[in-house]
Amino acid sequence: MTSVRTPLPPVSPAGVLGRCRELVEPALREAVGTLHPWPRRMASFALGWCEADGTPVTGGGGKGVRQALAVLGAEAVGAAGDEGVVAAVAVELVHTFSLTHDDVMDGDERRRHRESAWRAYGTGPAVLAGDALFALAVETLARHGGGHTGAAVARLAGSLRELVRGQADDLLFEERPWTGAAAVRPAEYEAMAAGKTGSLLACALTLGPVLADAPPPVVEALGEAGRQLGAAFQAVDDLLGIWGDPGTTGKPVHGDLVRGKKTFPVLAALAADGPAARELAALLSPGVPLDAVSARRAAGLVEAAGGRDAALAEARSRVAAARECLYGVPLAPRTVDELVALTGFLVDRRL
Amino acid sequence: MTSVRTPLPPVSPAGVLGRCRELVEPALREAVGTLHPWPRRMASFALGWCEADGTPVTGGGGKGVRQALAVLGAEAVGAAGDEGVVAAVAVELVHTFSLTHDDVMDGDERRRHRESAWRAYGTGPAVLAGDALFALAVETLARHGGGHTGAAVARLAGSLRELVRGQADDLLFEERPWTGAAAVRPAEYEAMAAGKTGSLLACALTLGPVLADAPPPVVEALGEAGRQLGAAFQAVDDLLGIWGDPGTTGKPVHGDLVRGKKTFPVLAALAADGPAARELAALLSPGVPLDAVSARRAAGLVEAAGGRDAALAEARSRVAAARECLYGVPLAPRTVDELVALTGFLVDRRL
Repeated sequence: MTSVRTPLPPVSPAGVLGRCRELVEPALREAVGTLHPWPRRMASFALGWCEADGTPVTGGGGKGVRQALAVLGAEAVGAAGDEGVVAAVAVELVHTFSLTHDDVMDGDERRRHRESAWRAYGTGPAVLAGDALFALAVETLARHGGGHTGAAVARLAGSLRELVRGQADDLLFEERPWTGAAAVRPAEYEAMAAGKTGSLLACALTLGPVLADAPPPVVEALGEAGRQLGAAFQAVDDLLGIWGDPGTTGKPVHGDLVRGKKTFPVLAALAADGPAARELAALLSPGVPLDAVSARRAAGLVEAAGGRDAALAEARSRVAAARECLYGVPLAPRTVDELVALTGFLVDRRL
Repeated sequence: MTSVRTPLPPVSPAGVLGRCRELVEPALREAVGTLHPWPRRMASFALGWCEADGTPVTGGGGKGVRQALAVLGAEAVGAAGDEGVVAAVAVELVHTFSLTHDDVMDGDERRRHRESAWRAYGTGPAVLAGDALFALAVETLARHGGGHTGAAVARLAGSLRELVRGQADDLLFEERPWTGAAAVRPAEYEAMAAGKTGSLLACALTLGPVLADAPPPVVEALGEAGRQLGAAFQAVDDLLGIWGDPGTTGKPVHGDLVRGKKTFPVLAALAADGPAARELAALLSPGVPLDAVSARRAAGLVEAAGGRDAALAEARSRVAAARECLYGVPLAPRTVDELVALTGFLVDRRL
């Protein structure tokens, strides 16, 4: 007997994100509510729930991609609802922790159209808020109970190790030249992006399945899908860091070029041979911060040398690879539809 | 039939600390060796294993009280040796994480006779190093496996929550006045110290027993012993922060008074009635940093008002309470001797 898959109504990325947010937010607010009042205030600010002074706001915060992936990962293997929620809470807390500390390390003053936490509260308090979020993530997951909690916590901590590794590389890349023997190689860039972005997306998709003791090949396929999505996500972030609309991204125009950040489009452009690549190399080689005019010129040269197209192609091919992973193992079909809709959104957001 | 306890040779605190360090250090070095090279270098510096540039040093680092407590806690309940070691590694990593981040938050420039990590490497990298240590602690414990890993991780994460709470209070106390309705009350000080110091000592003593599934009353008694020791430890730290020999403590003379830090001896002195207490209140009330002469005068007034004796009495009574906890439940007698020797050392160190 073969089963015929009934066509289901199409899913919208916004609908999926909204549904998952509704599932997760009460538990996330409950967890954050247990913190000491001061880190609680700062954590709520970092999560987009309030202004720096504690005034509640609505509609703030990030897109909630990671929490949605955690819910969908659990649903894809038929895990209990609370397993997806606890996974989503842990992943969202770790993500907010990492944004808070990364902004300290990178000196980024803006985040999601507002001051970053260290600008709003000072460096020391922002470090403390990050630590509180980190500890809360681990505690939330560890207290979930069940026989597979240890494995789930080990997975979360392993993704934190990879986050740290990626952030360390990213910081070290800033010291390295654009050209010559010491320049950042594409493989190094990919490893950095895998750590900084892919590890947490892989963790998000697999945490619920690990709690639910899903078969290892299924967990592995979801993890690989997460890593591929991470690479796509990073490539799109890199595109937005150069060509994104500041009104949408909440970050300055050409910001990554002004800061001399090593990103996929620029590295791809420099790796291309041709007059635009050579002029770009000459512009960047002194290693001094670019002014607005030079940054605009650099953005044009990256595009002319094919860097913009290469990054977009990279994002699309990684998303295709992620979808292959999802189609290759038995997962709940409706959830796969929702995951696929989200992967499309990751590439097309604000481009 | 009654058993007669054979007298055992006396134990020395230095001998206990050395024995535990030998047990723990190989596993600690193995764990740190898995980090990305940059945070690994910074973590090794923070652990006292190398200079800032990576040159190995011997005999650096802290006293290793926490790792010793973790080993002894496990031995006290007859846990397997590796359970004590994994607990000790996790606790020592969390302790080093918290010192590294606390120095950033407090702006402390010196630690263990050297630059603090943020002075040596910069604030951002020190934050990253702390994050790496934190993630490594959780990962090490979570990967230990066994049916009680989840409970052990939840305990470690819970102590991190208490650490954050204590550090938040400690930072907030600095903003509060010395006298009047908004002054820090002794009970608030105790809660802060319980979080900042007691929680990790309690965690150290109980992590091995939780992994080994020791009976709850035994775990509870060891936890309470750890909290009492934490209060004693903090009171002694406070004494050293005012009267400690900078050549031994590695910190400036009267450092806590110069910084206006709310500590047990000062709060006890202010709570006493009498001319010295009133003069001390007048000296501190403006809330401006003290110069060296005023700090020396303040130290004399704290002593004259009984603050020094009160802190010492607090430390001794807390140690006595910790010993009561240890004697109140069935534990390996030789290990109890070693624990008791360590508790004495905690009070008498460098005084």
